[in-house]
Amino acid sequence: MTIEMDQKALWSCSYGLYIVASCHEGKANGQVANTVFQVSAEPPRIAVAINKENYTHELIEKSGVLSISVLAVDTPMKFIGRFGFRTGRDLDKFEGVETMEGNQGCPCVTENAVSIFEAKVFDSVDVGTHTVYVADVTSGKVLSDKEPMTYATYHQMKGRAPASAPTYQGPTPEKAPTYRGPESEKKD
Amino acid sequence: MTIEMDQKALWSCSYGLYIVASCHEGKANGQVANTVFQVSAEPPRIAVAINKENYTHELIEKSGVLSISVLAVDTPMKFIGRFGFRTGRDLDKFEGVETMEGNQGCPCVTENAVSIFEAKVFDSVDVGTHTVYVADVTSGKVLSDKEPMTYATYHQMKGRAPASAPTYQGPTPEKAPTYRGPESEKKD
Repeated sequence: MTIEMDQKALWSCSYGLYIVASCHEGKANGQVANTVFQVSAEPPRIAVAINKENYTHELIEKSGVLSISVLAVDTPMKFIGRFGFRTGRDLDKFEGVETMEGNQGCPCVTENAVSIFEAKVFDSVDVGTHTVYVADVTSGKVLSDKEPMTYATYHQMKGRAPASAPTYQGPTPEKAPTYRGPESEKKD
Repeated sequence: MTIEMDQKALWSCSYGLYIVASCHEGKANGQVANTVFQVSAEPPRIAVAINKENYTHELIEKSGVLSISVLAVDTPMKFIGRFGFRTGRDLDKFEGVETMEGNQGCPCVTENAVSIFEAKVFDSVDVGTHTVYVADVTSGKVLSDKEPMTYATYHQMKGRAPASAPTYQGPTPEKAPTYRGPESEKKD
């Protein structure tokens, strides 16, 4: 029996929700991402997939450094939307947001974060629309004992928020590597 | 202020729980993994980190193909242990386990699986103890509408299981890229 190609099979993979930030020559930006994974313990290394069109991708390409904030389960949708739908090329996404300057000189978002860590790019793979960065973790700090937000929980919360709410904004779904297509958005 | 290096910051990353299988020239093996993630939607590509010491790693290196089963939240610990602690070099891990032969000729574990998909290696990154494989998804099938098992839930369940139970076996933690060290095991 041949197995068909049903992309829905991929939807049951589990993810967290993160803000990935970077900076270069005085410019900084951050974006929502769900594809952050630890890939080795000794030395501590992580992998993250970032869309090539995103400003954060440009900054990581130039500087080779990034910071990651693990979002808490009670992170407001509005906060996630701030780092999701809009581009940091035209505005400072960090304005009014609690951050601390990391050892690498880039902002680490501490607001709504369970933990933060910094990383330096070790290698990367061009996977088409996205680049998978493998990076050495250079610092880490636990900020809270709250549960982390999972991608599944985020989708549930997004589904409950009224689509007409002017404050409602989710992460740019069409740029996510796990984008489920317009039809699936209605089901979330 | 300098950010120290607290590896616990990485523990709040979220993962699912999977069986990754491969085969080569009549030999097949599968292992538990938590680091499976989708890295692009068009074309559908995934990444997975596999410990170089594992037999499954050897088979993927030789054949370039793998299958992934997304485990359901109610997967028994004993089933997970079957694919975790033991090496497939000495025994057939698939004996008595429900599988189907995939299009690539390797077994896909269907027992306790929410979905299965097959993938062909596209690129890889040597990250030290592990290899991160980036692979094109070639087939996919949804098997159940159950919730997927998350790595967090697995750790909770493992904590509740009596350590003295002869049937109790978890995935080889010291080989996981997200290994938390002997001290942390006591806290799980």
